[in-house]
Amino acid sequence: MAFANQSFLDIPETYLFSMISRRVDEVLRRRPDLRILRMGIGDVTRPLPPACVAALHKATDEMADAATFRGYGPEQGYLFLREAAAREEYQARGCDIAPDEIFVGDGSKNDIAAFVDLFGQHNRIGIPDPVYPVYLDSVRIAGFSPLQVLLLPCTADTDFALPVPDTRLDILYLCSPNNPTGTAMNRDRLARLVAYAREHGTLVLFDAAYEAYVQSPDVPRSIYEIPGARDVAVEFRSYSKTAGFTGLRCSLSVVPRGLLARTRVGHDVDLHRLWLRRQTTKFNGCPYIVQRAAEAVYTPEGKAQVAALIDGYRETTARIRAAFASLGNPVYGGVDAPYVWVRVPGGMTSQEYFDHLLERYGIVGTPGSGFGACGEGYIRFSGFSRPADVTHLEEVLRS
Amino acid sequence: MAFANQSFLDIPETYLFSMISRRVDEVLRRRPDLRILRMGIGDVTRPLPPACVAALHKATDEMADAATFRGYGPEQGYLFLREAAAREEYQARGCDIAPDEIFVGDGSKNDIAAFVDLFGQHNRIGIPDPVYPVYLDSVRIAGFSPLQVLLLPCTADTDFALPVPDTRLDILYLCSPNNPTGTAMNRDRLARLVAYAREHGTLVLFDAAYEAYVQSPDVPRSIYEIPGARDVAVEFRSYSKTAGFTGLRCSLSVVPRGLLARTRVGHDVDLHRLWLRRQTTKFNGCPYIVQRAAEAVYTPEGKAQVAALIDGYRETTARIRAAFASLGNPVYGGVDAPYVWVRVPGGMTSQEYFDHLLERYGIVGTPGSGFGACGEGYIRFSGFSRPADVTHLEEVLRS
Repeated sequence: MAFANQSFLDIPETYLFSMISRRVDEVLRRRPDLRILRMGIGDVTRPLPPACVAALHKATDEMADAATFRGYGPEQGYLFLREAAAREEYQARGCDIAPDEIFVGDGSKNDIAAFVDLFGQHNRIGIPDPVYPVYLDSVRIAGFSPLQVLLLPCTADTDFALPVPDTRLDILYLCSPNNPTGTAMNRDRLARLVAYAREHGTLVLFDAAYEAYVQSPDVPRSIYEIPGARDVAVEFRSYSKTAGFTGLRCSLSVVPRGLLARTRVGHDVDLHRLWLRRQTTKFNGCPYIVQRAAEAVYTPEGKAQVAALIDGYRETTARIRAAFASLGNPVYGGVDAPYVWVRVPGGMTSQEYFDHLLERYGIVGTPGSGFGACGEGYIRFSGFSRPADVTHLEEVLRS
Repeated sequence: MAFANQSFLDIPETYLFSMISRRVDEVLRRRPDLRILRMGIGDVTRPLPPACVAALHKATDEMADAATFRGYGPEQGYLFLREAAAREEYQARGCDIAPDEIFVGDGSKNDIAAFVDLFGQHNRIGIPDPVYPVYLDSVRIAGFSPLQVLLLPCTADTDFALPVPDTRLDILYLCSPNNPTGTAMNRDRLARLVAYAREHGTLVLFDAAYEAYVQSPDVPRSIYEIPGARDVAVEFRSYSKTAGFTGLRCSLSVVPRGLLARTRVGHDVDLHRLWLRRQTTKFNGCPYIVQRAAEAVYTPEGKAQVAALIDGYRETTARIRAAFASLGNPVYGGVDAPYVWVRVPGGMTSQEYFDHLLERYGIVGTPGSGFGACGEGYIRFSGFSRPADVTHLEEVLRS
């Protein structure tokens, strides 16, 4: 009989967002008239930029004609997108990243979870707490034991930034701007972590899915803005939160050449080669039409439309932040990221406050405890909410 | 320093199709005028069915409007597609499969490779030889040792069908109609394998990516046509070879409820639950617009257009088969599948015959040895080739 991967049984059964949607359904069954303000899942609500829509239509027409039809594309992505991304995302900001160091994926969640395939079992892995649950879950599914995974507390004392670890790690996950706290590491903090990684040979997996929301001049949008980072860091980028691609699925992973890992017998191997091998074996590329839509993000119209989208979400984020601040709750994040991180009042747990807001106001946040033990006592709100919902939020919180 | 997954270093470095494309490039550098007949990669060449194109345009327009925009979809796929697939692919053929037993993926390669995540390390795994390399590669990347993997020879003696294994296996991969041999298991052979699986508690992973090409009345298009199969089998389906989705990416995986695996401590767990957990944690759904295109395959126009596509590929397959048969090479497959499997003449190896055909005629096949040791002495040709290329093939082979 087939034996199951035991790790699945050792990690919590229900993925956070499934729990939330079940709770909402339960409340709606009892109170079908309650207006639900969905600020839990970090899902975008505004339509695709017109430049991306036009690119989708055009590429779809190419697929309808034998002369321009495209079948399997390169697993690592079409060169047109990798070149545009290298130029606009990196070289334009002084980062030394070449097109062939960029891989196109079908979502940062997939890329980040898939990257674990590259790691042997002898790693000591550091994961911030609180953080996006996919890092820990995918590491556990891959068979790493709790003893190999160090959860690194990020607290209000450091504005939720990760302090330099006081122990040697082989692999370190970072997420800045951070999900869920909505805070972002400034240049100085990030430089100290890169220096730590260079000193200890730590591989940094840098999740920059929210980089487009950075406003503060001293906050880097890419880890490669820190000199020396390309020798220690992989970076993950997404079009989901930038251009509204959560339902369209496109992402980038950057694996600089020369970034090494060690084999059991002490040789060094190039991670770029392993990632290419992983992607050619277990992935078959992001759809051509979606890659054309992503390319359109870098046209003049695309840039302007994406900037307007992000401005809109920044405004809703700021209003949510102000609404909770007006209650007297300590409020974090929401400046360089589309998430607001609210301290739960009156000694309630995250889950109790989640239930309270849902039952009383129909407001759906995400319990901070779902992102790790250090998220207990907080709740996250997504700035991707609809303006009308934010107006309603302001009204009910005032009442 | 990060430790690499040693398995990557223990499996062959270069994925088969990368080797082929490199060889073609080498020959073209020397002989830029050579007309290359690409019959190596199993990639489709005809444009998308108009019904799918129309569905893509319509869904793209929905994504352009805030009222109809869709962000994250369900990781297991939209119900509209799962219901259509359950009805048309299964219930219409008398197979007892419900919509919630179907998961929508972004390609069978991805689904099949990802499914390995569900397995613990104590399995004995059977893989036919020759077969699609992704089964073995993904099993090896997951850390299963060569001692745990039994390669099961499929030879001309059984028309390349897998005989009933004479040993107990926990997991058994099957591919019918087969890639690369182009042969398909008849009802009797498949029923004996299902009986074997039921007797030994073997989990069957049935890859039916080419089912649409079945013509012989005694060849099942789904393993669920065999009574009792839903207690032992997972099935993988693809829109790639059916409706030309190789560049669009959409697939189905069917995991019947009640299909069990065993935990380390001897409990049984439902594989459906594990696959759902895997997909919600490491995957974020197939793009909405692509799922709408797949749904269009089941409309009356879509069905007619897909049938015409397949008829076209059947015709090219039959012509390729006849062209090689006329050389006197023993030829297999090509009736219930879009692949023709040709015995290499004159004591050459697969690779030598591949090089010979490429150098002399510009014909690109796939060396049978790339699909396993038992593929040595054969070469595969893809019936997805362009008719004009097949005409040229007929001419050069006659010369």
